[in-house]
Amino acid sequence: MKDKIVELSMGGGGRKMDELIEFIRSHFSLQQVKDGVGIESLDDGATFPTPKESELVLTTDGHTVDPIFFTGGNIGSLAIAGTINDVCVMGAKPTAMTSALIIEEGFKMSDLSLILKSMADMCQELNVPIIAGDTKVMPKGTIDKIAIVTTGFGVIEGKAIYDSGAKPGDKVITTGPIGDHGVALLAHREGLNLQTELKSDVAPVYSLIKSVIETGKVTAMKDPTRGGLSGVLNEFASKSEVSIWINEENVPIRPAVVAVSEILGLDPYHISCEGKAIMTVKPESAEEILQMLKNHPLGKDAAIIGEVKEEKPGYVIIETSIGGHRILEKPIGEPIPRVC
Amino acid sequence: MKDKIVELSMGGGGRKMDELIEFIRSHFSLQQVKDGVGIESLDDGATFPTPKESELVLTTDGHTVDPIFFTGGNIGSLAIAGTINDVCVMGAKPTAMTSALIIEEGFKMSDLSLILKSMADMCQELNVPIIAGDTKVMPKGTIDKIAIVTTGFGVIEGKAIYDSGAKPGDKVITTGPIGDHGVALLAHREGLNLQTELKSDVAPVYSLIKSVIETGKVTAMKDPTRGGLSGVLNEFASKSEVSIWINEENVPIRPAVVAVSEILGLDPYHISCEGKAIMTVKPESAEEILQMLKNHPLGKDAAIIGEVKEEKPGYVIIETSIGGHRILEKPIGEPIPRVC
Repeated sequence: MKDKIVELSMGGGGRKMDELIEFIRSHFSLQQVKDGVGIESLDDGATFPTPKESELVLTTDGHTVDPIFFTGGNIGSLAIAGTINDVCVMGAKPTAMTSALIIEEGFKMSDLSLILKSMADMCQELNVPIIAGDTKVMPKGTIDKIAIVTTGFGVIEGKAIYDSGAKPGDKVITTGPIGDHGVALLAHREGLNLQTELKSDVAPVYSLIKSVIETGKVTAMKDPTRGGLSGVLNEFASKSEVSIWINEENVPIRPAVVAVSEILGLDPYHISCEGKAIMTVKPESAEEILQMLKNHPLGKDAAIIGEVKEEKPGYVIIETSIGGHRILEKPIGEPIPRVC
Repeated sequence: MKDKIVELSMGGGGRKMDELIEFIRSHFSLQQVKDGVGIESLDDGATFPTPKESELVLTTDGHTVDPIFFTGGNIGSLAIAGTINDVCVMGAKPTAMTSALIIEEGFKMSDLSLILKSMADMCQELNVPIIAGDTKVMPKGTIDKIAIVTTGFGVIEGKAIYDSGAKPGDKVITTGPIGDHGVALLAHREGLNLQTELKSDVAPVYSLIKSVIETGKVTAMKDPTRGGLSGVLNEFASKSEVSIWINEENVPIRPAVVAVSEILGLDPYHISCEGKAIMTVKPESAEEILQMLKNHPLGKDAAIIGEVKEEKPGYVIIETSIGGHRILEKPIGEPIPRVC
């Protein structure tokens, strides 16, 4: 029998990746520390009790993006923002990071410097130090330029926010337009000439969501990276055992993202974002939280895009602008490879 | 002016790597959490105070070894043991890990399974869970098979053990023979036919050094991976501002390591080990600690190999078997590339 192989689509945030992760996870019987959130939850990060009863968060992310420099950021800013965002959307205050670089022999020092500067600037802005690191150099041709693996650590000061916390009646909020990152990278890589400039939305969301977390009214939260909005909503629906109903007219999407998606036959709901958070919130606090978000530069296009219901648990349903419905499934694989 | 480039030798644990790390580090102004050990110490891991005053350890390591399967282990066992050992030699009890896999498209599932099984077995043996993970797949030809980045987290129950703690009069102990890992990989890669089988010494040292740490008599400790024994001793000497005097006759080295080193012109003191720890200990406890180590299967060849002195701070001096002296410098680059 021929050996099964790892396929490119298995790295893509969709169902194919779920299979690979399940395959990987199935090898391990230890998956958490005491009652903390462990790898079995497939949440953004892991938590573990300290010896003295406070909860800490640990999360890791490998970054293998192509191109490594793009409009709006580079692999370095992506590595910091991506990992810190995973810490934040668990409801934690980011406290420390580690960074492991894997660099191709012959990589330009000046390019490395640009990447490191972006990382350092973002760490400074967040006031989060990288407290441990590792550097490997691989021979030419054995790694494409550079990969960066960052691990983030945080402390939960209030209560942790899990994917499983959405309740019927909750409102669904996005902190901004979706699909920018994936389409910006694709446009850059393919040399597409867009009428309007489209930048990646790479950014740390901590300053945006900090006060929102403190309201205690956020029931579930996730950053829509691989798998996009669709990936996030499907995680909420299945882990919270609810359905999510999205009003298509209210979902903010930039015209350039719509245009590129139409040309290339992509579903914008499947496209990777960075620097965004999707949350479910208590209905009575939805308007207040929306205003808090809109008052922040990163959240000026925030919108209430839907509602959590009890019926049809596990499903994400799009209510279209012409009054129809469609089921939004998780993408099979990442429609745009190597965007994070 | 031509751009400076990253050279292969910069990944090798020697002075060339120090330059690269210093270059990387120089970009960051934040390097630690409060009074914890941060990246500026270039110790095995980082520590940071919890909100309630207990000390935690965080450390990260990228593994890009070639071949990925070798006599005595594989990239998976290496990734777990290597990172956990970094946590342990700080004086901490390992508590949790994260793992990020970067896999080449087309990688065999059966090979992945073997690697994951080794990881899981070692986690089980150590009772340390992987609590967060990430998986990326890169297109064929953009990564050589697989890279694994593991991050380790631990709690210091007594006091942390730093590279800077060696004091004049302390004895230097190795927990076993040096150079096995590097030479075993080299032999495998080059198809060398050794008279005696030589296995990599990949192993977690926690069970070996746990009781030794509890004596409170270990003043500095490090695992000799990239840079070998030479790298460790030079770190002790410079960070502790002492000299280290090594009695060549007492350093345990297997005949196969001696033979391969002689043939290829390698210095065994520069060759990577795994599953070993080098420590300086209070002189009055040296014999007792040596016996504790010898009573453990991983420590049966442990030996007192030298002494810490006040004169000539920063130097490592080998006292040769014919009564001479030579200065042992850090290797310029890893003599055997891609062994960890």
